[in-house]
Amino acid sequence: MIGKSMYDNELRALLLELLVELTPKDYERKKVEEIVHLFTSRINDICRELKINAKAEVQGSIAKDTWISGDRDIDIFIVFPKGTPAHIVRTLGLEIAKKASGTNYVECYAEHPYVRAFVEDYAIDIVPCSEFDPKEGRPPTAVDRTPLHTRFVNEKLNERLRNEVRLLKGFMKGIGVYGAEVKVTGFSGYLCELLVIYYGSFLEVINNARYWKPFSTLIDLAKHYEDPKQALKIFKSPLVVIDPVDKKRNVAAALSLDKLSLFMLACNLFMSRPSKIFFKLEEHVIEEATEGDLRNYLDKSKTTILALATTLKSMPPDILWGQIRRSCNGIVRLLEQEGFKVLRWSVWSDDEKEVVFLIELESSKITPTIKHMGPPITSIEDVMSFLQKHVSSPQTVAGPYIEGDRLVVLTVRRASEATSFLKDNIHRAELSRDFAEALSERFDVALNEGVLSVCRGKVSSYRRFLKSFLRGSPHWLMNICA
Amino acid sequence: MIGKSMYDNELRALLLELLVELTPKDYERKKVEEIVHLFTSRINDICRELKINAKAEVQGSIAKDTWISGDRDIDIFIVFPKGTPAHIVRTLGLEIAKKASGTNYVECYAEHPYVRAFVEDYAIDIVPCSEFDPKEGRPPTAVDRTPLHTRFVNEKLNERLRNEVRLLKGFMKGIGVYGAEVKVTGFSGYLCELLVIYYGSFLEVINNARYWKPFSTLIDLAKHYEDPKQALKIFKSPLVVIDPVDKKRNVAAALSLDKLSLFMLACNLFMSRPSKIFFKLEEHVIEEATEGDLRNYLDKSKTTILALATTLKSMPPDILWGQIRRSCNGIVRLLEQEGFKVLRWSVWSDDEKEVVFLIELESSKITPTIKHMGPPITSIEDVMSFLQKHVSSPQTVAGPYIEGDRLVVLTVRRASEATSFLKDNIHRAELSRDFAEALSERFDVALNEGVLSVCRGKVSSYRRFLKSFLRGSPHWLMNICA
Repeated sequence: MIGKSMYDNELRALLLELLVELTPKDYERKKVEEIVHLFTSRINDICRELKINAKAEVQGSIAKDTWISGDRDIDIFIVFPKGTPAHIVRTLGLEIAKKASGTNYVECYAEHPYVRAFVEDYAIDIVPCSEFDPKEGRPPTAVDRTPLHTRFVNEKLNERLRNEVRLLKGFMKGIGVYGAEVKVTGFSGYLCELLVIYYGSFLEVINNARYWKPFSTLIDLAKHYEDPKQALKIFKSPLVVIDPVDKKRNVAAALSLDKLSLFMLACNLFMSRPSKIFFKLEEHVIEEATEGDLRNYLDKSKTTILALATTLKSMPPDILWGQIRRSCNGIVRLLEQEGFKVLRWSVWSDDEKEVVFLIELESSKITPTIKHMGPPITSIEDVMSFLQKHVSSPQTVAGPYIEGDRLVVLTVRRASEATSFLKDNIHRAELSRDFAEALSERFDVALNEGVLSVCRGKVSSYRRFLKSFLRGSPHWLMNICA
Repeated sequence: MIGKSMYDNELRALLLELLVELTPKDYERKKVEEIVHLFTSRINDICRELKINAKAEVQGSIAKDTWISGDRDIDIFIVFPKGTPAHIVRTLGLEIAKKASGTNYVECYAEHPYVRAFVEDYAIDIVPCSEFDPKEGRPPTAVDRTPLHTRFVNEKLNERLRNEVRLLKGFMKGIGVYGAEVKVTGFSGYLCELLVIYYGSFLEVINNARYWKPFSTLIDLAKHYEDPKQALKIFKSPLVVIDPVDKKRNVAAALSLDKLSLFMLACNLFMSRPSKIFFKLEEHVIEEATEGDLRNYLDKSKTTILALATTLKSMPPDILWGQIRRSCNGIVRLLEQEGFKVLRWSVWSDDEKEVVFLIELESSKITPTIKHMGPPITSIEDVMSFLQKHVSSPQTVAGPYIEGDRLVVLTVRRASEATSFLKDNIHRAELSRDFAEALSERFDVALNEGVLSVCRGKVSSYRRFLKSFLRGSPHWLMNICA
C-alpha cells in the first residue's frame, strides 16, 4: 500500500494538480457533445432515409468518460442488428459513414473498413459494426467487441476511478507509450481502463508494474483461466491481459517489449521521484536539430548517421507503420550481413507517405577485406572446390590458410561504403511490396550533416525527431536522473 | 591400394627421384660417422677417467638410419646403468656432456637437462639418461625411453621401409609440419617412423591420412588398448598414436590441430597432383618482403598490419616458443576485448630472444563510440545505478535507451587507436613473466610500412617470414592449385 508519510501528501497534491490539467474543460466537453450530436443525428437520419435498421452510438473514451483534456478523437459506431451479414455491414456501413462525413474525410482500413472525418481539429472515426450476443461465440469482426468493452468498463468505473484512468493515460502519453497503433505499439485506452479496474488506482498500477516480469505477467480480471501458466502459453506476449469480454483475446497484444520496458522504467522512476515531468509530452518540449547539433554529436561520437528517405503512395498509418517496421528490419539486416555495424536505428514518417530511416553506424566505411571461413579439412570435395575458387582468384587477399581444422581465406568484399552499398543492393533487402516499389522510384541516401535536409515533408517534425534520436534518451528520463 | 596405372609409373619415378635427393650422400655419412666417433670416444674416455659406469650411445635418426640428406642433427646419449639415482644422472651426466663438448656449446633444458655442442654446421645433442627395464614400469624421465624407441624401430624397419620414412620426412619438412618442437607443433621423427611401420609405405601413410578425423583417429601398433574409444578418451588430442613402448604416452601429443590439418590438406593435394613441390622447403623458395610488397598488400586489403617487437633474455627455443604462444594469445585477446577486429596473427623469432608479433587488424582505428548493454529492466537496483552512472556522464554519447528489456547506452571507449592502446594497456594482457619483463624494458609497435624495419635481429629471416605472412598460403599449396 502507498500513502502514509509527508511525502505522500506532496504526492497527493501533485496528482490533484495533474488531474485538474487532465480533466476535460467545460468548453471541450461542450464541443465534443456538439460534434457527437451532429454525427449521430446525421447517421440516424441517413439510416431512416435509406430504411436501414441501424443506429449511431458514441463509443470509446467519450462514451466511457475517460478521455483527457486535449484529446481530439471521437468514435462513433454504426450498429447494425444482430445477424446482419458481414458484407452488408461493410458496404452499406461504409456508404452511410461517407454520407455522414461531409466533404473532409479519409477512408481507412485497419482490421475493418471505416471512415475518418475531420471537423475543425477533431478526428471522428465512423465505424460500422454489428450487435452480437457474446454467449453465441466470438464477434464477427474485432470492432463488434467495442460496445461490449464500453458496457463492461462503464459497469466497473465510478467517478474516482475515471480520474485514476485519466492520470494513467496522462502518464502514458507523457512518457510516450500511449496508443496501440502500429506506430506506437503501446497501451490502448481500454488497456489503461482495465489496469485501473484491476489494481484500483493510478498509483497502484504504477507501483505494481515495476515488478511485472515480461512474458510471465498475466492479468485476468474475469478469471477466464484457472491456470495462469496455460494462458501465458497461449499468448506468449510481453504482457498478457485477458479481455474480460473475450477469453481468446489478449488486450495487450499490440504492446511491444520495448514499450513495456519503457513503461516499467518510468514507473520505477516515478515511484522514487514523482514529478510532473512524466506527464509532459516529448514533442512539446523538444527543439529541432540544427547543423551544429549534428556536428557536435558526430565530433563526439565519431559514428556515422545515415538517412534513407523515400515517398510512398499515401496509406493509413497502421498499414504504413507495419510496412516501415518490416522494411526497416530488412534494411538493417542487409547492412549487418555485409559487415556494417549498426549501433541503433529509428524511423520518422509524416504518418502518410514520407518516410526517413535513420541508422547510426559505427562507420560508413568498412574494411574491404573479409575473413571467409571455408570447409573443414575432412570434407575433401568441399576443400577441393574451395581451393579451386580462391587460390588464384583476384578477390583473394591472403590465404587460403588453416585455422584449427578449417580452411580460411581473406577476400575482398562486395562493398565497403554504406551509401553506395545501399544504392546498389537495396533490392536485396527484405522489403514490403509498397516499399520496394517506392524505393525503385525514389530514394535519397544522406550521411552525417546531409541527413538534416533529406526530408521533403514536414521538416520541422523531422528535425525534432532527429534531435531526439541524437540524444537517444527520453526527455523525462534525462530530466529526472540529471 | 595404390599403384595400378600409367599415372602410377610416373608417381613411382617421381618418388625414386625424390629418394635419391633425400638419401644421405656418402660424404655426409662419412662426416656424421666421424663426429659420432669423436664424441662417443670422448665421452667414454671421460667416463673411464672419472671411473663412472656409463657409456656413450648414438641415438635418434642416425642410430635408426632414417635421417635425410641435409640433416645436421646428431643425438648422443650418455647411458647410466639401471637404477642410477636421477639426480646423479642429471648432475654427473651434464658434467660429462660439457667436458665432451669442447668450447662451442649451449646448455639446454627441455624435459631434461642436456648439452648442445656445435661442430662445423652440425649440432650434437648430448643427453644423459639411465637404462631401465620397461617391465618394471615407466621410465624415470622422458629421454630414458629413447633407447627403447631406437630398438623398437630398428626391429621393425628394413631397407625399403627406411626409404619410405625418408620420403615421409621429406614430405613433412617440405610442407612445414616436421618437428615436435613447441615452435613447430608438428610430427616428430619417431612419429614418422611409426606411421610408416603402421601403414607400410609413404604412399599408404599419405593416402590414409586424408581420411583421418581429428580427435577421433587412433593408431595403436602394439594393441595396448582393446577399445579405441577408451584410448581416445584418455588422450583427447587431434591425433592419438600410442607409443608401442609406453602405453601411457601419445607420440603425437605435441601435434597441433593446425599442423595436423595442414598435413591432411597436403596429403589430399599430393594424391590428386603428385609433385616435387611438396618436398621443397618453404624457406628455400620464398623471397624477402619489400616496402613495395607491403604497400601492394595494404592497397589491396585496406587492412592494418601491426608489429610488436621486443627482446627477451636468451632462452632455449622450446621455452621461448611456449612463452610466445601464451603471450601472443594474451595480446590478441586484449585487442579483441577492446573492440579491435583481429583477422589473423603470427610470430617470428630468431629462436633465441628477438620476437616480433605480427597482427593483421581490420583497421588500426575503431569508432570511439561503443554500445554498452545495461541491466534488464526488471533488476530495479541495477537499473537505478546504471542510470546514475550514465545519464549525466560526459562519456555518454547517446541514451540510455531501451532495447528489448534492457537499458543500453552509447558511450566513449577507453581507446580507439591500436598503437597507443597497446602502449598504454599492454600490462593488462595475460603475458608470461619473461615477456612482461621484456615489454616493460623495450617494445616497439609499428604499423603498415613501419613493420618492415621493426626487427633488430636477423632481418633477412624476418622479411622472408613477413612475405610469407602477407601471402598467407603455403608455397606448395599455391603452386599446386594455381
